[in-house]
Amino acid sequence: MMKGKSVMSSETRVTGKHQVVEEVAGTSDPDIRAAIITVSDKGFAGTREDRSGPALVEALKGKALVNRTAIVPDEIEEIKALLVELCDCGEYDVIFTTGGTGFAPRDVTPEATMAVIDRHTPGITEAIRQASLQITQRAMLSRATAGIRKATLIVNLPGSPKGAVESIGVFLPVMAHAVETLRGDTYECGRK
Amino acid sequence: MMKGKSVMSSETRVTGKHQVVEEVAGTSDPDIRAAIITVSDKGFAGTREDRSGPALVEALKGKALVNRTAIVPDEIEEIKALLVELCDCGEYDVIFTTGGTGFAPRDVTPEATMAVIDRHTPGITEAIRQASLQITQRAMLSRATAGIRKATLIVNLPGSPKGAVESIGVFLPVMAHAVETLRGDTYECGRK
Amino acid sequence: MMKGKSVMSSETRVTGKHQVVEEVAGTSDPDIRAAIITVSDKGFAGTREDRSGPALVEALKGKALVNRTAIVPDEIEEIKALLVELCDCGEYDVIFTTGGTGFAPRDVTPEATMAVIDRHTPGITEAIRQASLQITQRAMLSRATAGIRKATLIVNLPGSPKGAVESIGVFLPVMAHAVETLRGDTYECGRK
Repeated sequence: MMKGKSVMSSETRVTGKHQVVEEVAGTSDPDIRAAIITVSDKGFAGTREDRSGPALVEALKGKALVNRTAIVPDEIEEIKALLVELCDCGEYDVIFTTGGTGFAPRDVTPEATMAVIDRHTPGITEAIRQASLQITQRAMLSRATAGIRKATLIVNLPGSPKGAVESIGVFLPVMAHAVETLRGDTYECGRK
Repeated sequence: MMKGKSVMSSETRVTGKHQVVEEVAGTSDPDIRAAIITVSDKGFAGTREDRSGPALVEALKGKALVNRTAIVPDEIEEIKALLVELCDCGEYDVIFTTGGTGFAPRDVTPEATMAVIDRHTPGITEAIRQASLQITQRAMLSRATAGIRKATLIVNLPGSPKGAVESIGVFLPVMAHAVETLRGDTYECGRK
Repeated sequence: MMKGKSVMSSETRVTGKHQVVEEVAGTSDPDIRAAIITVSDKGFAGTREDRSGPALVEALKGKALVNRTAIVPDEIEEIKALLVELCDCGEYDVIFTTGGTGFAPRDVTPEATMAVIDRHTPGITEAIRQASLQITQRAMLSRATAGIRKATLIVNLPGSPKGAVESIGVFLPVMAHAVETLRGDTYECGRK
């Protein structure tokens, strides 16, 4: 079964997962639970080292507990199945994907994301692209999307380590507020 | 029937509707007909005063005739029913909604809007978020959308009075042109 | 048959098509194959000169081979049929449309585009609107969209010659990279 294969394979690739959890324990926002999914044919096949996933784990230190990392190939059904599994288990507040957001024929991460979300959150990827455009005009070619399934936010990030880290940096300042609101904890909006 | 209840209840809440119309009569663009819908469970239940609706009425003085205000709960079917009713009666050029555009579990105003529009107008909410990002990074968490149903433009605004007024301020400079074009009155685009 | 009529009529209107090809031969990116579709009731009827199509041909000189130009009326089925034909024949890397992106009742180019694309490319039109907002606030009323069908990118541009040329100017710096990636030629993303 494709889904099983993907998930199991990715789990066996999760090296240092528990170490990561311990490293970030006791940080400022220890209760935000995150997952990182690297979408990459080469990464999944083991013919290229996944540097973006670990770079994102590093970027989230002190900001969220990364309880799960995974690598899946650029297959829309496998990406969708893993997103659904991670959202529906109720154990993750935010899922960051890295990879599969460009124009290459097999880039389908945004399509997988749009297929599983209940609610769009267009402002996140607009803000990321707007910031990235200050760095490179190629940012306009990012097809990244973001949205909410049940109580989990999914945010697509680019596939390069540099692009992924720059992009998550745009979102991190508002992540805690986003998660509080998603959980229904925010009684009133901060701005009156 | 939920729809009837919502609409009737909101109508009884319309205080000062005719006064509003008289106040703005004879202004610069007296022929733009607007409606304001406050989407709020607490406002609908009467457990919180609606300050955003009146703030938008004030912001539209001299710019449009606000012929209708209403308060509906965060129920997608009720929001959709009211949007459809107001668009299909042909009496409104623009409907502004306030509220229900965030990440809270019951925030569904953009989904209601997307379900009833014929044509998307993504540039309006992009421009609003871009301007709002200069004020607060949380602007990227706005899920507001905008679009056209028949000859009526629907624009989602945030739920806080401050955010709603700031946001409508981005759109107001182009409202008259938008309405003229929607009506088919603009023979040629102003830019050659 | 509407589709046949549209396409044949537009082909007979293609004046100077081969001249255009010769003019741009031997340029810096001679292998990017482009088509330009003018969407305009008046242009199709011959009651208004199409100035946007020729302005885009001029803007693409030295950057792409414009192997096809066409004029279609603001009819969603005719626009869709032509987009599908040009994408599915495999002879075009990029199709630029001009016109039909505003609020006028018959403006449906974005809807035709969204109906035929496989993958959205929201960053392109976000970047164009962001740049255009620096020139005119009315840019927020552009409903232009962009996306990929098979191996062809479709980009909507505004209908005025000035707006169309300004808008394509935002995209041209990344066009070669977009096309290389679409073709699957880019082994690695340039940003590490």
